[in-house]
Amino acid sequence: MKKMLVFQTDFTYKEGAVAAMYGVVKSVDSDIEIITATHELPQYDTWSASYRLYQYIDFWPKGTIFVSVVDPGVGTSRRACVAKTKNGYYIVTPDNGSLTHVDHYFGIEEVRSIDERINRLHRVDNGAVSIFHGRDLFGYCAARLSSGIITYEEVGPVYPLSEIIRHEIAEPVIYEDRIEGMFEINDPNFGNLWTNITFTDFLDAGFKTGDRIRTCIYKKGELVFDERIPYFDSFGKAEDHSVMIYNNEINKMGLAEVVGNLCQDYDLGYGQDYKVVFHHE
Amino acid sequence: MKKMLVFQTDFTYKEGAVAAMYGVVKSVDSDIEIITATHELPQYDTWSASYRLYQYIDFWPKGTIFVSVVDPGVGTSRRACVAKTKNGYYIVTPDNGSLTHVDHYFGIEEVRSIDERINRLHRVDNGAVSIFHGRDLFGYCAARLSSGIITYEEVGPVYPLSEIIRHEIAEPVIYEDRIEGMFEINDPNFGNLWTNITFTDFLDAGFKTGDRIRTCIYKKGELVFDERIPYFDSFGKAEDHSVMIYNNEINKMGLAEVVGNLCQDYDLGYGQDYKVVFHHE
Amino acid sequence: MKKMLVFQTDFTYKEGAVAAMYGVVKSVDSDIEIITATHELPQYDTWSASYRLYQYIDFWPKGTIFVSVVDPGVGTSRRACVAKTKNGYYIVTPDNGSLTHVDHYFGIEEVRSIDERINRLHRVDNGAVSIFHGRDLFGYCAARLSSGIITYEEVGPVYPLSEIIRHEIAEPVIYEDRIEGMFEINDPNFGNLWTNITFTDFLDAGFKTGDRIRTCIYKKGELVFDERIPYFDSFGKAEDHSVMIYNNEINKMGLAEVVGNLCQDYDLGYGQDYKVVFHHE
Repeated sequence: MKKMLVFQTDFTYKEGAVAAMYGVVKSVDSDIEIITATHELPQYDTWSASYRLYQYIDFWPKGTIFVSVVDPGVGTSRRACVAKTKNGYYIVTPDNGSLTHVDHYFGIEEVRSIDERINRLHRVDNGAVSIFHGRDLFGYCAARLSSGIITYEEVGPVYPLSEIIRHEIAEPVIYEDRIEGMFEINDPNFGNLWTNITFTDFLDAGFKTGDRIRTCIYKKGELVFDERIPYFDSFGKAEDHSVMIYNNEINKMGLAEVVGNLCQDYDLGYGQDYKVVFHHE
Repeated sequence: MKKMLVFQTDFTYKEGAVAAMYGVVKSVDSDIEIITATHELPQYDTWSASYRLYQYIDFWPKGTIFVSVVDPGVGTSRRACVAKTKNGYYIVTPDNGSLTHVDHYFGIEEVRSIDERINRLHRVDNGAVSIFHGRDLFGYCAARLSSGIITYEEVGPVYPLSEIIRHEIAEPVIYEDRIEGMFEINDPNFGNLWTNITFTDFLDAGFKTGDRIRTCIYKKGELVFDERIPYFDSFGKAEDHSVMIYNNEINKMGLAEVVGNLCQDYDLGYGQDYKVVFHHE
Repeated sequence: MKKMLVFQTDFTYKEGAVAAMYGVVKSVDSDIEIITATHELPQYDTWSASYRLYQYIDFWPKGTIFVSVVDPGVGTSRRACVAKTKNGYYIVTPDNGSLTHVDHYFGIEEVRSIDERINRLHRVDNGAVSIFHGRDLFGYCAARLSSGIITYEEVGPVYPLSEIIRHEIAEPVIYEDRIEGMFEINDPNFGNLWTNITFTDFLDAGFKTGDRIRTCIYKKGELVFDERIPYFDSFGKAEDHSVMIYNNEINKMGLAEVVGNLCQDYDLGYGQDYKVVFHHE
């Protein structure tokens, strides 16, 4: 396995934080290839951190080590950990919800808290405790793991899987005449919204490409969208600026405004406030 | 030749699409070095995709493989292709206009449509057809080509060069007393505008550094700028916030507001709506 | 030492400049690993360029070569140089202030101006003088240095250290009853402000974690903030949206609005206009 680390954070590139973190990695072992998944995650948003890992993790080679740092509680008692997933990856992260989706959909096999006496960078600066865990703790520990300086077992002690911090994940509900789900994330670039309704559930309910499906969207309980919109297997089949249903890149049902921005144009977002219903009628 | 792939898309880093695409590349062959040209191309803008390739392609080592994914028609009958350029590069891209400038200025030697039965990632997910071609088609095929799993000939069947989708490229017109051109692209960072008038044509017309040239800009036929502005061979010779003419980085004439933003401050853009005229008088 | 180059610029990824620059590097030697520190530095801001280098440089392996291009005076008589730092790094940059902080805090051992006859890319294009120094001068020269084509001594002639262009750096002043400093930079992502008061000075003044310190901020001489705010060794100890003092990642005192944005919410910035005072009373 090539030595490489895949990073996602909410640091942005506006200042020197990413560069400092990457420098520490290269100082541990300059052979480690650093790959940027993103540094543009929404600030403090551990839900997005969790979702994005889930979205892309299993497209990577088995054994890949991911570093995820969205850490609103940096410096509190929240654990710093390395999780080993059932599908063969490692995630170095604050244990603050970022493991939620990977745990739910792929499973966590084991999780260890990072032994900061060994696997944290300590520089001699007046005994100051660094607040930059991305650089001194997560980046440093991940580099040691990637380079083989430590084994996974030497990260630190195992703790019970039940103690992993998890966000609540809502499951869709299938009725005789409809499927009820929610928007669980957006595609902030193109403004699409992704539901928690799987392609399998959608097919099992009898929907098929070309159907015009009555789709209702509720925002805090209030009906804000009630239209028949088509389900297509490609964007190219719909008219520009029309709203359509599609099977997204991880096989859940999404809604898009073709060559437009559904979130903006219809003032929609994701999270518990949003309910989406596909009707058979 | 080192295995490497250079990517440009309009995906941004706001979500997990880039990471998923890069993961597929590394899963094909973890030795492939991934280089990000940009993921900030203007959305759906195949003209910009084409122009940027033209702007930077020939600074790369011969044999470099580029992946360009700006794909408003994803899932339609537009072709997915690999073009071999006359100056020695490969471009993996939807054939939707993104080859326009490279074809015009450097030439395409041959183009092949990607055989999706072989060179597309098929995962067993209910037989769902993935809509994410950047990841499953372009990224995957490019990785196979880069790694040597397939040769260029094994990409798929050749199709006629005449069938390549091209945008129209306007050429400047040289008169006795003036050169008429257009703004063909901007430098969105610094707000400069780049004309289609080459440095050669400009010199041949007799203009030289230090000249103050009457410059007229027409927006949809209406004269919106009519001033004498200097042509300098460096920004440092003009006063801050003055407008000047310069020879840009690919040897075409540009207009800049020094330490300012011409596009914003003068409400200008690029495209067919804009005509720019340099007068001798 | 692995061949690698670390880049910081104000180019953004909005167009093809980064890709062209990286292409030149790979054309010199495709084995050079290119690492992006950032391309999002504030435009034309040589102070930020200088500060960011200082912020992250000594986390990198000794011998690392940095390329820093924020160059408002491109094409003027400002020097193009390679500096060798006392702590073992090389910086390839326009000499326009970008060496200020590294020189002040770590020291420059020697500086050489780049011999443009040898270490500049000359392409045969009508004898045009390229205005893109990031690509043709800094990127190209750095690649030759990294690859070993030239030694550091072959960059060009040495010039006196006294001729390096420096911004003025303000030092904090320690009084019996207070420390007076300034905001020298911000963390534009999270909206924190970093003072020039070191953790050592702060500790020596007798402040300790948990103290509620009367903090005054003056903007152009006018008192705009006068509150007792706590000093904590981690963000997690303060309430959300409260303002606190902390020891930042390079051991200087910072101010933050926890899970908020101090700069925006209090209309504050950095630079000579801002004075910050920590009182003992």
